[in-house]
Amino acid sequence: MSQAETQALRRARFEAVFLVLREEVLEHCASEGLPDDAIQWYSRNLTYNVTGGKLNRGLAVVDTIEILKGRSLSDSEFFRASLLGWCVELLQAVFLVSDDMMDRCATRRGKPCYYRLDGVNHIAVNDSTMLEAAIFHLLRVHFRSEPYYVHLLELFHEVTHKTEMGQLLDLITAPEGRVDLHAFSLERHRNIVTKKTSYYSFYLPVAISMHMCGIPHLALPSSSCAPSGPYDIARDILLPLGEYFQVQDDFLDFAGTPEQLGKAGTDIVDGKCSWCVNTALAHVTPAQRALLDADYGRNDPAAEVRVKALYEDIGLRGLYEQYEKAAYKRIIALIETIPEHPASEDSGSVVLKREVFTSFLDKINKRQK
Amino acid sequence: MSQAETQALRRARFEAVFLVLREEVLEHCASEGLPDDAIQWYSRNLTYNVTGGKLNRGLAVVDTIEILKGRSLSDSEFFRASLLGWCVELLQAVFLVSDDMMDRCATRRGKPCYYRLDGVNHIAVNDSTMLEAAIFHLLRVHFRSEPYYVHLLELFHEVTHKTEMGQLLDLITAPEGRVDLHAFSLERHRNIVTKKTSYYSFYLPVAISMHMCGIPHLALPSSSCAPSGPYDIARDILLPLGEYFQVQDDFLDFAGTPEQLGKAGTDIVDGKCSWCVNTALAHVTPAQRALLDADYGRNDPAAEVRVKALYEDIGLRGLYEQYEKAAYKRIIALIETIPEHPASEDSGSVVLKREVFTSFLDKINKRQK
Repeated sequence: MSQAETQALRRARFEAVFLVLREEVLEHCASEGLPDDAIQWYSRNLTYNVTGGKLNRGLAVVDTIEILKGRSLSDSEFFRASLLGWCVELLQAVFLVSDDMMDRCATRRGKPCYYRLDGVNHIAVNDSTMLEAAIFHLLRVHFRSEPYYVHLLELFHEVTHKTEMGQLLDLITAPEGRVDLHAFSLERHRNIVTKKTSYYSFYLPVAISMHMCGIPHLALPSSSCAPSGPYDIARDILLPLGEYFQVQDDFLDFAGTPEQLGKAGTDIVDGKCSWCVNTALAHVTPAQRALLDADYGRNDPAAEVRVKALYEDIGLRGLYEQYEKAAYKRIIALIETIPEHPASEDSGSVVLKREVFTSFLDKINKRQK
Repeated sequence: MSQAETQALRRARFEAVFLVLREEVLEHCASEGLPDDAIQWYSRNLTYNVTGGKLNRGLAVVDTIEILKGRSLSDSEFFRASLLGWCVELLQAVFLVSDDMMDRCATRRGKPCYYRLDGVNHIAVNDSTMLEAAIFHLLRVHFRSEPYYVHLLELFHEVTHKTEMGQLLDLITAPEGRVDLHAFSLERHRNIVTKKTSYYSFYLPVAISMHMCGIPHLALPSSSCAPSGPYDIARDILLPLGEYFQVQDDFLDFAGTPEQLGKAGTDIVDGKCSWCVNTALAHVTPAQRALLDADYGRNDPAAEVRVKALYEDIGLRGLYEQYEKAAYKRIIALIETIPEHPASEDSGSVVLKREVFTSFLDKINKRQK
């Protein structure tokens, strides 16, 4: 079997688990007396919003658990790893349903955004929170007897709180239709990206996997000095990795072709707090700054063309290349702080491995879409 | 000191705890690098949405813990009981902020609804979830070393899920501006009320208090047969109590004077799935049913007058009196299944007491607003 076939099979097996989990959640609601029309509504909510994406985050849980264990998983292990992967996908769905409402987006994953479906509209506020409730129901049913159960709950709580902080920061930094570049800076961009994306997309799947593999978690958060436990080490690699990923995303929105992206970039017109505009702000002359103030975030194709020309003038492509090289080098150096042949590997206990992070980095590095 | 003065002092002491908790949550966010403008936003969110209500649910936690312990609380106990009480108030705020958006309400607690504040609008979706995150942050900081910590987390998850199911059921039974009385029934009304209101307003404060007092919780949910543990007994009294409370509320919306209520009732015009219309539907002639189909849920004063006259014609006031008597009798009978002098009271372990429930019932019974 080719590697592509193996991957497709793995994905199909992961997707089959979703059908089991959806049934479980709906059966629980039926047992609580929720009538059929509401069950149907919940079922559509789960299917429409949780499936149909790239599943990178969910599959990363299964991949990471295999890497940590150093062997392929039994059927039962695959099911449980997939369940945790789907919990990450459910959390992503919570954020996407809400964000699409807040940003007034039109489409998501090639379909109309959920809140735009006939009869949904504001009910999507409640539906989004019902996706979150499914996470805790599934964890309770399948993981409550595990010693790391409470750590999983806290992990989801903390990552959710961080993501909401990031979303708030983004919303008040770049409010819809009212761009004020004074609020922008590369520092704020990093703050938004780390909180809004890196925690749930990069740290969460790995930390979940570490828990399922029994890597011990300290009861108290480490001091703000050097990272001590394995979860701190993982976080200190994965947050910069997430930032690197998002900066790529921001740059591709400007530099990628519609053929590459499957869509045209809209960050300039939408007035987004993107890496591109923040980098430009750090390099502009006063005249260029005046142009940005006038043209950034306008729904006007001529203004967009002028901003793009300004990006070329300041050499944004070269600045991105520099950023990319430095970020890659920095992340590699962080990964290399993990011993290549961990001492305790022979003792049977699972320890952190470089491969967990290099497998993420390889997927991200120099991607074109 | 008069009883009213004692109550006012108790309320002020409870309110003072909120200021400490708000500071704690905001300091945590600051330590995570959230900038000042976002901290200010979160602070207003917490203050605007969590304070200014009647605080019945939060104070019920403090009261119930005192009743269960059979003595007044130490300063530290009062603080921790109040913290748990504020977690219930925070959860209530999560629901109110979302529900007001979904129902397009104008005012709440005599002020504009939060989403209507300048610059807020859809950001309220994220702000509502940030109120929820504050609950889990506070529980983690103050209760993580308690043996009942995981039960508190599960209790909040389960009650939240139930409330969301109730909200969904309400939203699809009585969608805004599209009344269809075929979807209504007294059975569906009870289902909505139990899920949407009783769990979080009545069961949650008591179950929290029972946990803090060390009343043991079975690891697995009891079978669907007879209630076994003390939490089942409490739930089986508090859910009917919550229904009784909501039926009163629905009846007062029709029968209460604006002087009593502080506002005019709007359920008929809004097309709400109220106890009144569902009781009417169970007693109407075909001609009266046609009138309800035509006039219920219309923004037309003449239609509202006709519906009110129909309520009088079918004798709704008398039907309510019957309901009230039967509900009171049923709840008293449930309370009396609890031993008046619990055997294990002398052993020092805390057990369920009738007074927990009679104190709720006394507050609700025959209230005029």
